[in-house]
Amino acid sequence: MSGRLFGVGLGPGDPELLTLKATRILREASVIAYPLSEGGASLARSIAEPHLGPAQREIAIELCMSTERAPGQGAYDLAAPRIAAELDAGHDVAVLCEGDPFFYGSFLQLFARLGHRYPTEVVPGVSSVMAAAARTRRPLCARTDRFAVLPATLADDALLSAIAAAESVAILKLGRHFARVKALIEGMGLTDRATYAERIGQAGERVLPLGETGETAPYFAMILLYKGAEPAILDALNGPHLR
Amino acid sequence: MSGRLFGVGLGPGDPELLTLKATRILREASVIAYPLSEGGASLARSIAEPHLGPAQREIAIELCMSTERAPGQGAYDLAAPRIAAELDAGHDVAVLCEGDPFFYGSFLQLFARLGHRYPTEVVPGVSSVMAAAARTRRPLCARTDRFAVLPATLADDALLSAIAAAESVAILKLGRHFARVKALIEGMGLTDRATYAERIGQAGERVLPLGETGETAPYFAMILLYKGAEPAILDALNGPHLR
Repeated sequence: MSGRLFGVGLGPGDPELLTLKATRILREASVIAYPLSEGGASLARSIAEPHLGPAQREIAIELCMSTERAPGQGAYDLAAPRIAAELDAGHDVAVLCEGDPFFYGSFLQLFARLGHRYPTEVVPGVSSVMAAAARTRRPLCARTDRFAVLPATLADDALLSAIAAAESVAILKLGRHFARVKALIEGMGLTDRATYAERIGQAGERVLPLGETGETAPYFAMILLYKGAEPAILDALNGPHLR
Repeated sequence: MSGRLFGVGLGPGDPELLTLKATRILREASVIAYPLSEGGASLARSIAEPHLGPAQREIAIELCMSTERAPGQGAYDLAAPRIAAELDAGHDVAVLCEGDPFFYGSFLQLFARLGHRYPTEVVPGVSSVMAAAARTRRPLCARTDRFAVLPATLADDALLSAIAAAESVAILKLGRHFARVKALIEGMGLTDRATYAERIGQAGERVLPLGETGETAPYFAMILLYKGAEPAILDALNGPHLR
């Protein structure tokens, strides 16, 4: 009988935001696999570390965080057969994934390669979007609000049409797109409705009104934008909660 | 010194999907408060129960789940001063909230009434949307997909414009709007791109392709719709993962 493949959502970075289920799977799995950046660091592994044991085998998926269209594809092509060999031998493999595995998660790379061949279970996690709202004490949405999540990598027209059709918006993965997105929001006259959140739940966490930011942002940064009419959310945007 | 107000996200219903932080706050708070439906049941309290102690005081917020525009406003008007009295006396109060407190959460009612007066902290939780994707083994979004969350209570034009401006969509709170929303999706020719998920993480959980559903749905039901081009998500929609 083959082992089971787990995609384990670890939440945004705060080690207290792991779920009980994630900690159980991390303790029980024979093998853990995790993405490793070019510099040799793994945020996912560092979040999971308190729950790992010395007898577990580890498979590092060595990524090259390049700007090519499909970064890390080669790394997943190399990692998939190593993980498959463990599953074939009857060992459970837990793949560590920041945030939620099925919400822009890196786990999709392995799910596409192995999910149809092995019994697969996904452990949902707290998204960085919900964590950013909690951290800034600024609700995301209520009642009939439409809520859109948009990668900053999108072209202007795709961003604009989605922002037009929502009351609340989270724009993720800002990085080198930050100045363009910030200008887009300014052009819509929505800067005073926007909150900037950087590295939520990680070292170097920072939140401030969008109008007070500089011209650059890291990849792990997002903008929360609220165009709706919910008084409690409008109050929170401009209230004393942010700092 | 006043006590602290906590909005505690409990996740979708599975008791293993609580975060470590939620379980700590539930253990430490002097007082817990939770919404109670007309029938005397509290899903939130039942999720939290294993972590509550006999010495904690409890404040039940007695809701009447009516179809009026602002259900339960009166219940929150009554509960807020009771909670404020505990906070004034220096006691921490944990308000239990299914899912995530700031993502269509009932906690917003108390945040609006008390958040500006007392030190307030929100503990983010796993959303039922991420839990439904995990349960159906059907990823929500990847790469440059735009993801929209829409309450089924919206009028057709508001739903249509938002669906047009997204690659992936979750439609929540179906209840009496189910037949209309289902017909809307059929009219767009997207039925075979849609998954139905009911009471995820709760007793009576059920998932199936939208085309195989009947004509009614409970309030705690959602539709996941994928219009994008990610091969792994398209495979999962029609693959053996759903059952």
